[in-house]
Amino acid sequence: MSARKLLILPGDGIGPEVMREVARVTAWLSRKRGITFDVSEDLVGGASLAEYGTPIREEVIQKAREADAVLFGSVGDPKWNTVGFDKRPELAILKLRQELGLFANLRPAKVFDALVDASTLKPEVVKGLDIMIVRESTGGIYFGDPRGIETLPNGEKRGINTEVYTTHEIERVGRIAFEMARKRQNSVCSVEKHNVMESGLLWKEVITDLHAREYSDVTLSHMLADNCAMQLVRNPRQFDVIVTGNLFGDVLSDLASMLTGSLGMLPSATLGAKHSDGRMPALYEPIHGSAPDIAGKGIANPIAQILSLAMLLRYSFDLETEATMIENAVSAVLATGLRTADIMSEGKARVGTDVMGEAIVREL
Amino acid sequence: MSARKLLILPGDGIGPEVMREVARVTAWLSRKRGITFDVSEDLVGGASLAEYGTPIREEVIQKAREADAVLFGSVGDPKWNTVGFDKRPELAILKLRQELGLFANLRPAKVFDALVDASTLKPEVVKGLDIMIVRESTGGIYFGDPRGIETLPNGEKRGINTEVYTTHEIERVGRIAFEMARKRQNSVCSVEKHNVMESGLLWKEVITDLHAREYSDVTLSHMLADNCAMQLVRNPRQFDVIVTGNLFGDVLSDLASMLTGSLGMLPSATLGAKHSDGRMPALYEPIHGSAPDIAGKGIANPIAQILSLAMLLRYSFDLETEATMIENAVSAVLATGLRTADIMSEGKARVGTDVMGEAIVREL
Ligand SMILES: CC(C)[C@H](C(=O)O)[C@@H](O)C(=O)O
Ligand SMILES: CC(C)[C@H](C(=O)O)[C@@H](O)C(=O)O
Repeated sequence: MSARKLLILPGDGIGPEVMREVARVTAWLSRKRGITFDVSEDLVGGASLAEYGTPIREEVIQKAREADAVLFGSVGDPKWNTVGFDKRPELAILKLRQELGLFANLRPAKVFDALVDASTLKPEVVKGLDIMIVRESTGGIYFGDPRGIETLPNGEKRGINTEVYTTHEIERVGRIAFEMARKRQNSVCSVEKHNVMESGLLWKEVITDLHAREYSDVTLSHMLADNCAMQLVRNPRQFDVIVTGNLFGDVLSDLASMLTGSLGMLPSATLGAKHSDGRMPALYEPIHGSAPDIAGKGIANPIAQILSLAMLLRYSFDLETEATMIENAVSAVLATGLRTADIMSEGKARVGTDVMGEAIVREL
Repeated sequence: MSARKLLILPGDGIGPEVMREVARVTAWLSRKRGITFDVSEDLVGGASLAEYGTPIREEVIQKAREADAVLFGSVGDPKWNTVGFDKRPELAILKLRQELGLFANLRPAKVFDALVDASTLKPEVVKGLDIMIVRESTGGIYFGDPRGIETLPNGEKRGINTEVYTTHEIERVGRIAFEMARKRQNSVCSVEKHNVMESGLLWKEVITDLHAREYSDVTLSHMLADNCAMQLVRNPRQFDVIVTGNLFGDVLSDLASMLTGSLGMLPSATLGAKHSDGRMPALYEPIHGSAPDIAGKGIANPIAQILSLAMLLRYSFDLETEATMIENAVSAVLATGLRTADIMSEGKARVGTDVMGEAIVREL
């Protein structure tokens, strides 16, 4: 196999420091497993704004296109809060999604046994929780036209955004969800607001047809987005795979993450369609943000970033064995009682970013 | 004061049976407090579909316009699941909102001390919770044009909905939120996705301006909708009043309701702008649905419907004393240990709809 091209984009806040712990793991991969990467690194978000006046350069997007996988940190910095809508740091991730066609955002929400008490929910409600949210991520209201703010003749303003979904867009993300479910508990819940929105009505129809045609072995249910938010609180373990649009996915996946009580533990993947040469565009990132309040203090939890690397090994390079080894090492280290500040609880040993990273590699 | 015109629309499922318990309370109001209503009643939702082939007749909308207040039950029945988009039972409530200009949907999420264990969240996280969500309810993506499903030249379909908000729409609902806050903990959190949607950007600007101009005594914060979903799970008591658009409000208010663990307890109000004659269009309804699975069994919890009447007395008729009396009677009855099935827990006395209704009136 030719060199595996990896683009690393640490971004802002705690991004760079948690990414340093990933380097320990890639060093281990090379040393002990003979797995090497052709790595390049670049700036995005506030870091890129400071250096180049734009949250992401065309050049970086091009590099991302050519890479086999992108490992992303996090973007966002209060310093840039007042920059215009066309310069906000978030554009880095939005543009990467759109330009690379990264249409399927996979957001696992998993409760580690050792951390079951970190949740604000009762342990008996969340123990063993393991949900995979498949969120459409290049369509819907995030990218639809017309959009903008206009001034009306009477001086008032009007803000407009458009939710658009086509059969094709719904089908391809639906397919990812059904395929995922087959490797998990074989059940998909499709979420929309078909009782209010025609785009949701089409969503429901297309998923229903796809299921009947190609995935009738998978259990399919439908749920309204408002009810889904309730059910995630009431009894989250009823879900296996949830498939939904960009905007509901944004809100529901964050909600599901918080059920675990430990955002610093959760990775994500965003995948595109396979090219004719077999390559699949893919980006991996922790679900937590740049956490500017704790940046540079050496106390951030590197686990979500390290587990994002595990997802990368699994989905982009088919290195299932190594992905599982890393995931098991994380569980083992938690079992020994090491905790970063965000997941600290009584009687455990509080450690910094680097000690946690080292411990995981030692465990490996 | 001229006769208070009240339109009662029980709707489907458990609607009619919980509404019967309201009649006991209005009888008490007349008997003991000299407060009477000019009541009329009509069909909506599936009940109206069955009788008239439409979820709500123009005539009923007209009656609602002429009433001082509408007390609504709930609509929706699986029998009508396959009826077309233009006949679904939900249209009853959507049309009432739009035709009467009911733009401010007030959704309290309150944890009763006696029911703190009903929540799936730990008692220390939700004890004393008291949030008021002010949801815009006649605008946004629920009602924006263009909308629909079209067939493209290649045979694919495309579903479209439009999110639109004007300065005026945002301002008037913002005003309600700030006024509410002044009577509560004096704090408003405005929720949107300004980092992705221009309509959210305008929302944030308009609320910020309104605050600076007229409500600078109230504490204002801003939060992204995805983060708000997380914060509602992480630490819901940080919120006093939340103000947000129609779609986010739909999802977040249901999420907030479920934090209490007892949907059968929660009322809501939806208010319009005062007419020149001082009358204010207003509709009151429990937040729970029609619960077809338990309908007709006499086991539904009537409390949300009775508390909806309390809100009606407060907001439409300024009968603060009577509203509080009813709310206190509900708390007192819970304290005696009576519970309907939905809020039942060990060691309590399980009762049906009518016994609960009677107990509340006896307490009064
Ligand atoms: C950074 C932001 C644009 C993004 C989104 O809203 O999609 C984030 O919240 C996410 O979920 O990945
Ligand atoms: C019945 C339905 C149309 C409605 C909505 O989505 O607004 C309901 O969920 C609500 O929140 O009142």
